[in-house]
Amino acid sequence: MTDFQPVSGFVLPRFAGIATFMRLPHVPLDDPRLSEVQIGLIGAPWDGGTTNRPGPRHGPRQLRDASTMIRAQHGISGIRPFEAARCADLGDVAPNPADVQDSLRRMTQFYARVRAAGIIPLTAGGDHLCTLPILRALSHDRPLGMIHFDSHTDLFHSYFGGQMYTHGTPFRRAVEEGLLDPHRVCMIGIRGTAYDSEDRDFARAEGIRVIPIEEFHRRSVEDVMAEARAIAGDGETYVSYDIDFVDPAFAPGTGTPEVGGPTSWQALECARGLSGVRIVGADLVEVSPPFDPSGGTAFLGASLMFEMLCAIVAGQAQENP
Amino acid sequence: MTDFQPVSGFVLPRFAGIATFMRLPHVPLDDPRLSEVQIGLIGAPWDGGTTNRPGPRHGPRQLRDASTMIRAQHGISGIRPFEAARCADLGDVAPNPADVQDSLRRMTQFYARVRAAGIIPLTAGGDHLCTLPILRALSHDRPLGMIHFDSHTDLFHSYFGGQMYTHGTPFRRAVEEGLLDPHRVCMIGIRGTAYDSEDRDFARAEGIRVIPIEEFHRRSVEDVMAEARAIAGDGETYVSYDIDFVDPAFAPGTGTPEVGGPTSWQALECARGLSGVRIVGADLVEVSPPFDPSGGTAFLGASLMFEMLCAIVAGQAQENP
Amino acid sequence: MTDFQPVSGFVLPRFAGIATFMRLPHVPLDDPRLSEVQIGLIGAPWDGGTTNRPGPRHGPRQLRDASTMIRAQHGISGIRPFEAARCADLGDVAPNPADVQDSLRRMTQFYARVRAAGIIPLTAGGDHLCTLPILRALSHDRPLGMIHFDSHTDLFHSYFGGQMYTHGTPFRRAVEEGLLDPHRVCMIGIRGTAYDSEDRDFARAEGIRVIPIEEFHRRSVEDVMAEARAIAGDGETYVSYDIDFVDPAFAPGTGTPEVGGPTSWQALECARGLSGVRIVGADLVEVSPPFDPSGGTAFLGASLMFEMLCAIVAGQAQENP
Amino acid sequence: MTDFQPVSGFVLPRFAGIATFMRLPHVPLDDPRLSEVQIGLIGAPWDGGTTNRPGPRHGPRQLRDASTMIRAQHGISGIRPFEAARCADLGDVAPNPADVQDSLRRMTQFYARVRAAGIIPLTAGGDHLCTLPILRALSHDRPLGMIHFDSHTDLFHSYFGGQMYTHGTPFRRAVEEGLLDPHRVCMIGIRGTAYDSEDRDFARAEGIRVIPIEEFHRRSVEDVMAEARAIAGDGETYVSYDIDFVDPAFAPGTGTPEVGGPTSWQALECARGLSGVRIVGADLVEVSPPFDPSGGTAFLGASLMFEMLCAIVAGQAQENP
Amino acid sequence: MTDFQPVSGFVLPRFAGIATFMRLPHVPLDDPRLSEVQIGLIGAPWDGGTTNRPGPRHGPRQLRDASTMIRAQHGISGIRPFEAARCADLGDVAPNPADVQDSLRRMTQFYARVRAAGIIPLTAGGDHLCTLPILRALSHDRPLGMIHFDSHTDLFHSYFGGQMYTHGTPFRRAVEEGLLDPHRVCMIGIRGTAYDSEDRDFARAEGIRVIPIEEFHRRSVEDVMAEARAIAGDGETYVSYDIDFVDPAFAPGTGTPEVGGPTSWQALECARGLSGVRIVGADLVEVSPPFDPSGGTAFLGASLMFEMLCAIVAGQAQENP
Amino acid sequence: MTDFQPVSGFVLPRFAGIATFMRLPHVPLDDPRLSEVQIGLIGAPWDGGTTNRPGPRHGPRQLRDASTMIRAQHGISGIRPFEAARCADLGDVAPNPADVQDSLRRMTQFYARVRAAGIIPLTAGGDHLCTLPILRALSHDRPLGMIHFDSHTDLFHSYFGGQMYTHGTPFRRAVEEGLLDPHRVCMIGIRGTAYDSEDRDFARAEGIRVIPIEEFHRRSVEDVMAEARAIAGDGETYVSYDIDFVDPAFAPGTGTPEVGGPTSWQALECARGLSGVRIVGADLVEVSPPFDPSGGTAFLGASLMFEMLCAIVAGQAQENP
Repeated sequence: MTDFQPVSGFVLPRFAGIATFMRLPHVPLDDPRLSEVQIGLIGAPWDGGTTNRPGPRHGPRQLRDASTMIRAQHGISGIRPFEAARCADLGDVAPNPADVQDSLRRMTQFYARVRAAGIIPLTAGGDHLCTLPILRALSHDRPLGMIHFDSHTDLFHSYFGGQMYTHGTPFRRAVEEGLLDPHRVCMIGIRGTAYDSEDRDFARAEGIRVIPIEEFHRRSVEDVMAEARAIAGDGETYVSYDIDFVDPAFAPGTGTPEVGGPTSWQALECARGLSGVRIVGADLVEVSPPFDPSGGTAFLGASLMFEMLCAIVAGQAQENP
Repeated sequence: MTDFQPVSGFVLPRFAGIATFMRLPHVPLDDPRLSEVQIGLIGAPWDGGTTNRPGPRHGPRQLRDASTMIRAQHGISGIRPFEAARCADLGDVAPNPADVQDSLRRMTQFYARVRAAGIIPLTAGGDHLCTLPILRALSHDRPLGMIHFDSHTDLFHSYFGGQMYTHGTPFRRAVEEGLLDPHRVCMIGIRGTAYDSEDRDFARAEGIRVIPIEEFHRRSVEDVMAEARAIAGDGETYVSYDIDFVDPAFAPGTGTPEVGGPTSWQALECARGLSGVRIVGADLVEVSPPFDPSGGTAFLGASLMFEMLCAIVAGQAQENP
Repeated sequence: MTDFQPVSGFVLPRFAGIATFMRLPHVPLDDPRLSEVQIGLIGAPWDGGTTNRPGPRHGPRQLRDASTMIRAQHGISGIRPFEAARCADLGDVAPNPADVQDSLRRMTQFYARVRAAGIIPLTAGGDHLCTLPILRALSHDRPLGMIHFDSHTDLFHSYFGGQMYTHGTPFRRAVEEGLLDPHRVCMIGIRGTAYDSEDRDFARAEGIRVIPIEEFHRRSVEDVMAEARAIAGDGETYVSYDIDFVDPAFAPGTGTPEVGGPTSWQALECARGLSGVRIVGADLVEVSPPFDPSGGTAFLGASLMFEMLCAIVAGQAQENP
Repeated sequence: MTDFQPVSGFVLPRFAGIATFMRLPHVPLDDPRLSEVQIGLIGAPWDGGTTNRPGPRHGPRQLRDASTMIRAQHGISGIRPFEAARCADLGDVAPNPADVQDSLRRMTQFYARVRAAGIIPLTAGGDHLCTLPILRALSHDRPLGMIHFDSHTDLFHSYFGGQMYTHGTPFRRAVEEGLLDPHRVCMIGIRGTAYDSEDRDFARAEGIRVIPIEEFHRRSVEDVMAEARAIAGDGETYVSYDIDFVDPAFAPGTGTPEVGGPTSWQALECARGLSGVRIVGADLVEVSPPFDPSGGTAFLGASLMFEMLCAIVAGQAQENP
Repeated sequence: MTDFQPVSGFVLPRFAGIATFMRLPHVPLDDPRLSEVQIGLIGAPWDGGTTNRPGPRHGPRQLRDASTMIRAQHGISGIRPFEAARCADLGDVAPNPADVQDSLRRMTQFYARVRAAGIIPLTAGGDHLCTLPILRALSHDRPLGMIHFDSHTDLFHSYFGGQMYTHGTPFRRAVEEGLLDPHRVCMIGIRGTAYDSEDRDFARAEGIRVIPIEEFHRRSVEDVMAEARAIAGDGETYVSYDIDFVDPAFAPGTGTPEVGGPTSWQALECARGLSGVRIVGADLVEVSPPFDPSGGTAFLGASLMFEMLCAIVAGQAQENP
Repeated sequence: MTDFQPVSGFVLPRFAGIATFMRLPHVPLDDPRLSEVQIGLIGAPWDGGTTNRPGPRHGPRQLRDASTMIRAQHGISGIRPFEAARCADLGDVAPNPADVQDSLRRMTQFYARVRAAGIIPLTAGGDHLCTLPILRALSHDRPLGMIHFDSHTDLFHSYFGGQMYTHGTPFRRAVEEGLLDPHRVCMIGIRGTAYDSEDRDFARAEGIRVIPIEEFHRRSVEDVMAEARAIAGDGETYVSYDIDFVDPAFAPGTGTPEVGGPTSWQALECARGLSGVRIVGADLVEVSPPFDPSGGTAFLGASLMFEMLCAIVAGQAQENP
């Protein structure tokens, strides 16, 4: 398994070297080593669904850069994910920056190949519309559960005169297309001013559980995550983590911030609370480097990706003891 | 009432258009529509009272820009303030950047006209000395109560050899001039290193209630705000919110930061705790764009203005059910 | 004509007030004063044609902000454009951030109305694809000449698998659609690494004059502009000014910078060299605030808009002495 | 004692004047007034031990600048440290930026002179390797206790092929050299991904108490600090405060941030919890201005230095009532 | 003369140490060494005359910081000013940030003491109004000549309803008060949009020579400076250098930038062209750190101060060979 | 040769993908494809020789990021270097961030392997001390000529008490070690304040030609480069390009800027003037991302690397027609 280890900071300093996710080897889809990979870290450099401040197309590259500061062992659990599973950086899916539908097609095809190779994808966005083609690829034959951290539900019907594919609509589409089982979906941290209540009404009607921020702040993270795990159950579950879930003091580099969110510690604890969930894929989206002057958002994002990686590994260990 | 609605993000994207407060119509004081306005959002672009790092004169423009990301409905209460009251952007009061006394006069006159039109002013500063001329205009015949969020009391007698009009002295002057009823004044969040105890001694002598930060952190926001509401009572009350009340991690863009302050969630909860107070005017001051590289301070400030707007509306609904 | 004067800095300091272009009155298309306007300043907040680093959608607002530092009189010629012509800020055209074709339609319609009102439009972009719908509106019945400052020809056929509408293609489309008379088109400042020579080949074949940067640096600005004026002749001419014409040290805030460009003084002299051209419309595009930490690009952009405004006025004076 | 007072903000505004620590007089080691000084503020502008992102060599100058905003009286305890003790800015120790061992020697010599003069040093780093020569100077004849705030233990054996003197190793060396009594050492806030468990194993074997962040967040600051004080006991104790102890939202300007840390309020409370400890020296290290665009890290650092200064003064008052 | 040497970078690295101008000793006005000083570097941390974007009050401290990168010998002339004359940092004059007239008085008194000590002052501003009290102190008995680099004449009568003391009026006042001999005044680099021609009309009427930027760009620096020296003649002359003389690409950190200015090389050459002038005082004003994200403006400003220092030294050498 | 082509922007947008130099394939030294490579782009992430502001260790990663905007064809000459020669990104040499001598050894060994493979190295620094080990590897048996663009000669004997290996000394060492033939060395652009004349004296004594900036500005680039080519002659020549050669307005992101330098156009023309030189290796050093807020320095650096690449290719074409 030595082929799938990060470059050690004792061999090449952490600031040195071509930046791949967590200093893992780069294994493109046409690389013969692909068949050995168990967890694939993937960039989705795209913001074609962004309705206000663009920039997440630059997210994957900055997340790769920041992720080179991540070391091999979890500080609390002691999990060493790169020893527990063969991980690799699969590179970036190629969006079409001038065509939304073509981009969705390209992304679905890319993730279908990842799935066919038996690889669990951990994606760095990109804006939140990225999650739709991933779900299309991952859940083609049965709806998935989902644990979703965000300040927005992304459950809107459409935008600006009927545009149905923006970063505000992916989960509406996913439910409509049967990609998600709404009764196994839990959305955590929803807040901010609203256009109206259309999204919440849809959630209620479909049976999606929404935990708004005021409830989140009243309860403990432990308690919230216990409920989330119960909702997801032991079925296959996708995890979608929008960095704007976290308060903008901790994550300013995002296009649609909402004040009053969780701290970085709460954000980490949420990700740790995924342990035990049967994760078939996960993402960290909406990191926007042009709005992140100190780079702190990308480092938090990379840290959350590492937490999700450990949760995936922990889940697999459970299944295959 | 359609004339007083914000431009919808579905008609003109939120990043587009001339930036007015919350995308409301611009109604200058000489506009015939003024008589219909109930709540007026006003910029006070002034920092002539600033003793250390200048910049708040640029606050109103940046707050307008950030406020275009505010949507029409409160995320928790569901209040839709622009439907509940006729709101407008009244433009900026014109200070004299080279003359403090002339600026105070100009501002008092401007707010006197606003008051005469029966409009509740919600002001975006400017440094904290702005509040003095506003109080002069609003409380000319009877002293007001005040709920004041800040890290400083702004109760000093003078500065630098007898200067009596700086952003450290407005409430000393306001008490001396009888604009405030000290027994109905509550100051929340006071902290930081001090020159001496002169301001606190004055507060104690006059009966002003000061809740320092160490007490704030010990108690719940709910508890603190219940006391604040009790102090204000059911009389007419002014609300003054200095952005440096919030911890500088959440609000770096200000001239006299003090570490150890509330989080953005606590800051929002404080503003929500104003509900039930009979608000005759409010302000959000000391946002200083040159010290706000990511613009997060302005967005938090705009969010707090929206919270205060909803509190004003809620208070009016109570009075006129 | 007093209705169309900028707010004086002696009445309201230049940092104060709602930011319109050059502090002019806001006259939306449905305002009765529209019929009096002679030159309309318009924002085109759009970057749907951007293939690399997005951001120009935020350009118009930042250009408005920076333009409040522009005073009423040209420093060299003494021209006072706001006295010479009735100018107004017509607001922003509303693009559809999620649909390129719909945006092009919306923009063409907006500019058709401007043209119908007899107003010369001076546009603040937006990415360079903006110019295509403007040309569609302005030249519906006869091809226009064009003087084009840029580091790229924007004459490419397509991008990324056949996308024909990006900020690299507007003038290819404009020539194909007969909106421009290629023999009356002059492109100045072209430079940077190239994909290939397809665009230059097209220019040569069509008779478009390209003055690359190495020629520009060899000749004087005066000489270059004399040739440009000769090419445009005395027919109706459009001026398109991409801020990336200027060296990125002077204009870092743009998405596709190319090093080795003109200084700000040369950039101004170029605009001054437009005097005598019969300008039917002009634009300043590709200002991208997220890449402009000190705001200098927007101020240079606003200064260039003022130069173009003076050139328009000078041209009109010539026609109607 | 008037010679050792900070310049008053009522005589010279706080933004004015040559920046010394807290506006204290500059008393170099060869100044005759040195013998009167009781507490010396010292800069250690060095990052020769930094293994990833450099910058702390610029820390002392930025900390001096930020410290000019610190006033004379503690906001809660009312302590006026500059009246309680004769404090001075002793200037910077001169490191050799091209030679680690020479720098260690120079620093040890400097602090030996400070100790010989009976001065308690309060140091502004510099990277954390600075603390090793300080400990060598201060504890030459008996091991000290230490309370250490950090996200890293800095207890590693070596780095990159046997380098034994980096900012990850100072306390390993200090224990090996007998400078610290491991049973009187308490490390608080440890977190982040790890290379391995070598440092924790060493701590356990030697009897050093490590309070990791997950324990810190579970307990109250009061409780944690009570334990820390009990571990330090009433023996002579050094305090070492790495700014990366605090969450990077509050302190982005540091080279090796770890997310999930304490808030600024908790950070201050920790420092206040030092009251009663017999402090023989203290430091605030790893402030890195190039990564601190808004300067907030330096201001937090200066505020923590003031807290530690008050704790030193309180401890002395106890000893010499 | 060893007492007045900068701290060597071989003794204390250039990034280390308390920042004084060019690492010179700090000699306050009440220091007995004052009588030995020949050239005094002084900070004037004030922006009370600023009508638009404030910030120059923070200039002196940032200029001191940047000036620590200046070495002892001129790169072209080989002049070693610190050996040629006894130079010292005299500290900052204390303005009153809340009172313009009091500030003018305080500054005049400070410079009168400097003059009385026979010291030539080289001042770091501060906004341009600073120059008025300096001229009042230096020219009390006979009018001075002046060479003035700027993009504005600063010759306006008043501002905003009669304010006669702003950074746009100092030289109008100085001429009115007889501090300057207008026939020996030369202003270089004037440009930008104008309110009107009032200042130029005044210059013409009084015999002040204005070399506008278009003339500057046409002629060589050598030629322009020869004329300037001829105008100043061999009488006592003051040099006032506003950093906004330089193009904002080279000097973004200033409050009233005007595009189209000289390069840094031209800016240096202008200062070198002062050689031979009988300089009785000089200043470098309008450096505004909040608008200087990379610190380059301060470094250019410090470099220009060094050039002026060498010019002063060269002038003295001429007088006292 | 298709294996050594950059990823096309029409296949994967330029902002997407793992960032290698100019989007070339990554071919580490142990890759079997190494033997096919003709020109190797290499990162030297090191600043262990930096005496003032550190940061160049982060240069290679940022240069890789910026270089993804470079297209395949030179805009003026039409050269397509990736078709003319097999180019690859060889990754980073691993320095030892805690040991200067070990780093020099590691770098010499790395470049010796590159040389043994017959590859011409084009290096992205790192500070200027990097060039010493490169020269040791490339010129082991005969001294090389060198064309050196810089604002400093880097010819000093030692620093800070005898440190002989800093970024101010590499070429002194190289001459002493016989790696360079001083009569074939030309240094262009030297400027700034100086410690003394020791370096210039050494240059004169050894026969090194120094073209200081004042001479550079007087002559044309063409003329200067003709002389440089004549000095280098037709022997093997190394090219060393310090980004601080360029004026800091164009390249702020560097540790030891000197004002008054060339423009970006002059900087490009200098690199183009290398055509015809027999280049055996080249570097672009001293790009320091922490001081480059807008990223413009890295983009200029990448553009200069492309120019040097074309010059290498042109030189080879000459030799092997």
